[in-house]
Amino acid sequence: MKGMENAHRKTAGEITGQTTLTLAERFRRTRALSEALAAPLSDADATIQSMEDASPAKWHLAHTTWFFETFLLRDHLDGHALFDERYPFLFNSYYEAEGARIGRFSRGMLSRPSLDEIITFRHAVDEAMEALITREDCAGLIALGIAHEQQHQELLQTDIKHALFQNPLGPAMYAEPAPAFQDVDEGWTEYPGGIAQIGHDGGGFAFDNEGPRHRVLLEPFALSRSLVTNGQWAEFIADGGYRDPALWLSDGWAWVQRDGIDAPLYWHEDEHFTHAGWQKRDAHAPVTHISYFEADAFASWAGHRLPTEFEWEALATTEDPSSGDQLDEAGPVLPRATGALFGSVWQWTRSGYLPYPRYRPAEGAVGEYNGKFMSGQFVLKGASCATVRGHSRASYRNFFYPHQRWQFTGLRLAKDI
Amino acid sequence: MKGMENAHRKTAGEITGQTTLTLAERFRRTRALSEALAAPLSDADATIQSMEDASPAKWHLAHTTWFFETFLLRDHLDGHALFDERYPFLFNSYYEAEGARIGRFSRGMLSRPSLDEIITFRHAVDEAMEALITREDCAGLIALGIAHEQQHQELLQTDIKHALFQNPLGPAMYAEPAPAFQDVDEGWTEYPGGIAQIGHDGGGFAFDNEGPRHRVLLEPFALSRSLVTNGQWAEFIADGGYRDPALWLSDGWAWVQRDGIDAPLYWHEDEHFTHAGWQKRDAHAPVTHISYFEADAFASWAGHRLPTEFEWEALATTEDPSSGDQLDEAGPVLPRATGALFGSVWQWTRSGYLPYPRYRPAEGAVGEYNGKFMSGQFVLKGASCATVRGHSRASYRNFFYPHQRWQFTGLRLAKDI
Amino acid sequence: MKGMENAHRKTAGEITGQTTLTLAERFRRTRALSEALAAPLSDADATIQSMEDASPAKWHLAHTTWFFETFLLRDHLDGHALFDERYPFLFNSYYEAEGARIGRFSRGMLSRPSLDEIITFRHAVDEAMEALITREDCAGLIALGIAHEQQHQELLQTDIKHALFQNPLGPAMYAEPAPAFQDVDEGWTEYPGGIAQIGHDGGGFAFDNEGPRHRVLLEPFALSRSLVTNGQWAEFIADGGYRDPALWLSDGWAWVQRDGIDAPLYWHEDEHFTHAGWQKRDAHAPVTHISYFEADAFASWAGHRLPTEFEWEALATTEDPSSGDQLDEAGPVLPRATGALFGSVWQWTRSGYLPYPRYRPAEGAVGEYNGKFMSGQFVLKGASCATVRGHSRASYRNFFYPHQRWQFTGLRLAKDI
Amino acid sequence: MKGMENAHRKTAGEITGQTTLTLAERFRRTRALSEALAAPLSDADATIQSMEDASPAKWHLAHTTWFFETFLLRDHLDGHALFDERYPFLFNSYYEAEGARIGRFSRGMLSRPSLDEIITFRHAVDEAMEALITREDCAGLIALGIAHEQQHQELLQTDIKHALFQNPLGPAMYAEPAPAFQDVDEGWTEYPGGIAQIGHDGGGFAFDNEGPRHRVLLEPFALSRSLVTNGQWAEFIADGGYRDPALWLSDGWAWVQRDGIDAPLYWHEDEHFTHAGWQKRDAHAPVTHISYFEADAFASWAGHRLPTEFEWEALATTEDPSSGDQLDEAGPVLPRATGALFGSVWQWTRSGYLPYPRYRPAEGAVGEYNGKFMSGQFVLKGASCATVRGHSRASYRNFFYPHQRWQFTGLRLAKDI
Ligand SMILES: [Fe+3]
Ligand SMILES: [Fe+3]
Ligand SMILES: [Fe+3]
Ligand SMILES: [Fe+3]
Repeated sequence: MKGMENAHRKTAGEITGQTTLTLAERFRRTRALSEALAAPLSDADATIQSMEDASPAKWHLAHTTWFFETFLLRDHLDGHALFDERYPFLFNSYYEAEGARIGRFSRGMLSRPSLDEIITFRHAVDEAMEALITREDCAGLIALGIAHEQQHQELLQTDIKHALFQNPLGPAMYAEPAPAFQDVDEGWTEYPGGIAQIGHDGGGFAFDNEGPRHRVLLEPFALSRSLVTNGQWAEFIADGGYRDPALWLSDGWAWVQRDGIDAPLYWHEDEHFTHAGWQKRDAHAPVTHISYFEADAFASWAGHRLPTEFEWEALATTEDPSSGDQLDEAGPVLPRATGALFGSVWQWTRSGYLPYPRYRPAEGAVGEYNGKFMSGQFVLKGASCATVRGHSRASYRNFFYPHQRWQFTGLRLAKDI
Repeated sequence: MKGMENAHRKTAGEITGQTTLTLAERFRRTRALSEALAAPLSDADATIQSMEDASPAKWHLAHTTWFFETFLLRDHLDGHALFDERYPFLFNSYYEAEGARIGRFSRGMLSRPSLDEIITFRHAVDEAMEALITREDCAGLIALGIAHEQQHQELLQTDIKHALFQNPLGPAMYAEPAPAFQDVDEGWTEYPGGIAQIGHDGGGFAFDNEGPRHRVLLEPFALSRSLVTNGQWAEFIADGGYRDPALWLSDGWAWVQRDGIDAPLYWHEDEHFTHAGWQKRDAHAPVTHISYFEADAFASWAGHRLPTEFEWEALATTEDPSSGDQLDEAGPVLPRATGALFGSVWQWTRSGYLPYPRYRPAEGAVGEYNGKFMSGQFVLKGASCATVRGHSRASYRNFFYPHQRWQFTGLRLAKDI
Repeated sequence: MKGMENAHRKTAGEITGQTTLTLAERFRRTRALSEALAAPLSDADATIQSMEDASPAKWHLAHTTWFFETFLLRDHLDGHALFDERYPFLFNSYYEAEGARIGRFSRGMLSRPSLDEIITFRHAVDEAMEALITREDCAGLIALGIAHEQQHQELLQTDIKHALFQNPLGPAMYAEPAPAFQDVDEGWTEYPGGIAQIGHDGGGFAFDNEGPRHRVLLEPFALSRSLVTNGQWAEFIADGGYRDPALWLSDGWAWVQRDGIDAPLYWHEDEHFTHAGWQKRDAHAPVTHISYFEADAFASWAGHRLPTEFEWEALATTEDPSSGDQLDEAGPVLPRATGALFGSVWQWTRSGYLPYPRYRPAEGAVGEYNGKFMSGQFVLKGASCATVRGHSRASYRNFFYPHQRWQFTGLRLAKDI
Repeated sequence: MKGMENAHRKTAGEITGQTTLTLAERFRRTRALSEALAAPLSDADATIQSMEDASPAKWHLAHTTWFFETFLLRDHLDGHALFDERYPFLFNSYYEAEGARIGRFSRGMLSRPSLDEIITFRHAVDEAMEALITREDCAGLIALGIAHEQQHQELLQTDIKHALFQNPLGPAMYAEPAPAFQDVDEGWTEYPGGIAQIGHDGGGFAFDNEGPRHRVLLEPFALSRSLVTNGQWAEFIADGGYRDPALWLSDGWAWVQRDGIDAPLYWHEDEHFTHAGWQKRDAHAPVTHISYFEADAFASWAGHRLPTEFEWEALATTEDPSSGDQLDEAGPVLPRATGALFGSVWQWTRSGYLPYPRYRPAEGAVGEYNGKFMSGQFVLKGASCATVRGHSRASYRNFFYPHQRWQFTGLRLAKDI
């Protein structure tokens, strides 16, 4: 969904930001994790597409492979022959510079190639990549490809959840439910205001939209130590939150009315749909699958507000971005309360997704990674239970349209002090 | 897509109209054919749904089984326990009397149950049906169930063709193309006019919409001995047929303009899409996959007209309805010219699909089979290369909306004399 | 909205079918009536368009004038200069042969020319027409132009009713309500069946779709002597008629569900909207503003059916087509019960609007009058309270789509005997 | 479209910010100007609505009057009886707290009340307002009502332009064209960066969204002294600007493709549509009627960027907000090049329309003025040729969705230094 490395002149170790693992090792682990995430799926499960925003699991597996084949093998490995000349048309996502591609909502018609054939494609590319994996001139693009695949790993999980939800049988991908809630402290963390350094500091990999690093002047504020929970959301509903236009942005109220919204996505009575099918909700767990409109309305109802991306980042720079509830291996995921700033759910901010001062997209196809999406979306910070641990960082900018909510989205309140 | 037996008091042999086979034998052959038709498909192929008008192959296999389980086993076999209590919600098509059901365009989300599970469902119902297969009081409904499944066998073939067509790879279900063209005579068959008996005569099975038999007064006319061919259609195109509003019905012209129609469905340059992938078109083969609007415009261009359903039937009563290019076994199908009145393509008539005098739908759920579709559609006569041989007859009334063309539809010209 | 005279070789007197008035006199009265119908309207009232099916009053006044200027003055009067070269683009309705025209739903943007300017246009054309009004070679087209304008007079009344209905103020065009109900007898008129002559007999003017005259074989039936009333419709509603899918055609039920239909158009509690604003409904008056779907569902609920157009016409040939509740002068209209077969409301039949045997549209632009609408619509017979008396006849075929109901449409039940 | 006074405790003179005129005088001049702007319009012109974004002229005249009647007369004048109890339903725009209202796209159905009746309504309210016009406790709301009406004066001009444009006759509101171009200097104004004070300083009237005043840290930049012109835009088109996806935001490119955009709104060959009908374009005049997407694509093509709202405001604080090409009286308007920072066209910035730190909407209905629109829109700065002189200021924040372009929108380039 986003990104391009801004750091071609660093060593591979510096680029990945994980000095304990070589780039090659990270590549192989990432590639293996994708297959592990799809392992519980049948060919048919991996083929269906539930809406234009989502993609089939099979497509994610192939598209991430296309990225490596196109920007690494094709562009940097002499004599590489494409695995299948027709695949770029099928598996390019949105890179205009890479030519024509299948209509976005036609991805769900790809019963062929089969899941097995796509796994074969993956292995062929993985094998060819061995020739490039230690080349310093390729390290930046490989790190980008890894980060890109990690983003699609999260999408694979949220997209298949949405697809299975369409099925009246409520099928489960996993037999066991996700791990349960752990209780945490509450309260507010205060920030005194002043000039903060915002954006990536250049150590290790980052997407182009995280820079350039620049100064932002902040007023004093406080950020909640805990995420808003299912129980708090139930109070909002019981208090008529979805029926009071005074709480909502104008576009949000139109959305509520038009789509008959009266609860987070996947809620039904006291259950919600999960990767393990329909399960009872936990009142103490963080609420998730909410839109920006809902997050903003809740904050108004609570008498507080959403933080800006700058406020969130100013507090996050001293936190460990690998802490909290994030993905370590394939399995059922559902946000848990942990007390960490990172993890559990992506946190809506009130900042529009817009370019930082002096931001310039990269040249060529990879320049389309982030910059062209800078209208109409809001920034989310942190990471979710479905984000690969190690993928996110304080300067990371996730972004979605204000009505979208099939990701693991949630909120953390802020207030002026 | 339609039907209800009108003959509960006949013997099973009379009802099926095929005295050489027992009803039990016809049941078993029909059930086996459906599985043979789906045999080339993967679970994923059988899951996808390309448009609201079409259904997944898997759904056809399950829905036809639901019909037997509901109207035979549930209603007539003491102690029958449903294979799965949740299946009626998934596999009821449109019977309001049978309760709620999945949204029509959500059928493509059913990655579960898998194709294998549905085959298991089929076999369980087949086995239970053995207890009813020779019961005289069930013969009428069994004959209806067979006719119903035959209709879905044709839909399965046209729906999967449409689904595979969406795939830019143009996948083939069958390695070999359909059999080639045989040349035939041309000319006109004349009919002197007068009072014709129209509708089913009560011998053997028929759907309720084919009766009551009644008299219709016809003026003299002639019907072409041959179907319009791909070659003739190419002349129509070359002559600007798709660009001259004077040839088109008003609704047809709006459809052409809105959808950018300029050739039959599946045509691209000199090829067309088939169950064996993209193939060269045969100029002498009957044109197919055309809408009523196109058929009517072609007839205007040719200086002739479409026949009424009554004219067509008046000439058909002396023909063998099992002749011509119809389906004998699973395999690639494509219309061939044969000289027979039946077969190759369903032939559009200019008759609206409306009730015959004194027509009354049956009571209960099966009464929804045909009557409720009597607005806005046109009657087609004959049979196609995808119709099971033995399914159709002179009084058979197929029907579709004037813009629909994913069936094997074609035309035979008529004129006044 | 339809038609073309089939009789160029008759005298003007024969053509109009009204021997007591000259063609010239009928022309002048028709032209004057249109202006009288628009007299209560402001420029703004006459400008607005409430939906794509309807047109502004101003447009009707100009379009009917365009018809005379185009097919009479331009084509038959040497040296005629168009009143305004730009008007054909604005006021052609659907004649493809007459060139490009304004988008149908953009008619409501024509605040200019003003109503006054259009009246000036009308008078200029009326004056020029004096040179042609007694020419025998023009009589057929003039009769067509008169019949055409009479059709638009009815549309003007129903379109402005629909437009004013959109206004929450419920404005009235007329201060006084339409005349009240007169009681009538009930019962059934029987017809013994046999061969009936259907279609126009060639005496006087008729539209091309009313011919050729031909024979139709009818089974015995009976037709109700009275129209279905508001009171009977209220019983249908009270009995859950709008909530029982078993009563409805499949397309009708989809329409009811999608549009939330639960009563005839213009009903609200015990009132309905009329040309005199909101008024109490009269239980004994004929129900009106119902769709074909509603008429068919009511007939099913009542245990009867709608007549075919042939049945209706067979009984109508001995009736006076100028009898009953029809329009004599500008004023508020609302159907009254009268006992006549004609008048009050157009009566839905179960006949599709399709060509009669040997029907051929006329050559040229006027050939587009009727034939190109022959798909997807149903025939209505009779006349309504808004039809100019003298306009309709037994062979007259009105037609609309099954969901349309802004005309004065109603129903008369039939049954088999 | 926006706003609420933030200053109830100031004197009327302070509030209006125009010490040379009393508040009463400003009220009367504003009310008179609205009528002058509508004077060239017929009742029909003033009734039509060309799209959901626009409103009829008549509605603007009534809605601004409803504002005074509701928030001043009803709430602050004892014993005031509403002019018409039904008007609030018709003329409330979007204030949820003020109850139900007519559907936004149904405003074009209000042929009644007539333009004359609405003028009568205006005069009645004007007269009743005399009792409040000097009351200090009402001065804040009166100043808000004046600013509100000035916003609708601009909308009235752009909405009627859009409505008349729909008419193929291209009608002119004014006989004479707008005044012609005056040449200006070019070049860049540099800003050294640092902490700028942003937002309204509390002297005189301002909308709530302009505050609270706060500090923003800016990097060095330069802003063009001239607006982009029609001539420069023609070069952009000639260079394929509308056909190169690399120049466009993703949502912008989708918009270009879907709507077939290839030039600014109102352009056709070398003319454009104006209040004086179709006129030749002036290459030296500022380009206008462009969307944010177009402005952003142009800036990319030119190798520069759009300014942020903060950059623009930092330079504007030393400028006279009443300078440049702004509206002084009713008449044809079209942007001219003047060299002033304010006027001619509203200038798109790359800043999302979002709340300032510590921003809180006011309580009650007037609190809906601005805050609820803070998602999905971009800020525009300056003023246009259709903005009443005196209405805008450096802190003024106009806002529209990125695809909207029926306002007098344009752009001024910025660059990093
Ligand atoms: Fe991607
Ligand atoms: Fe079926
Ligand atoms: Fe007409
Ligand atoms: Fe307003």
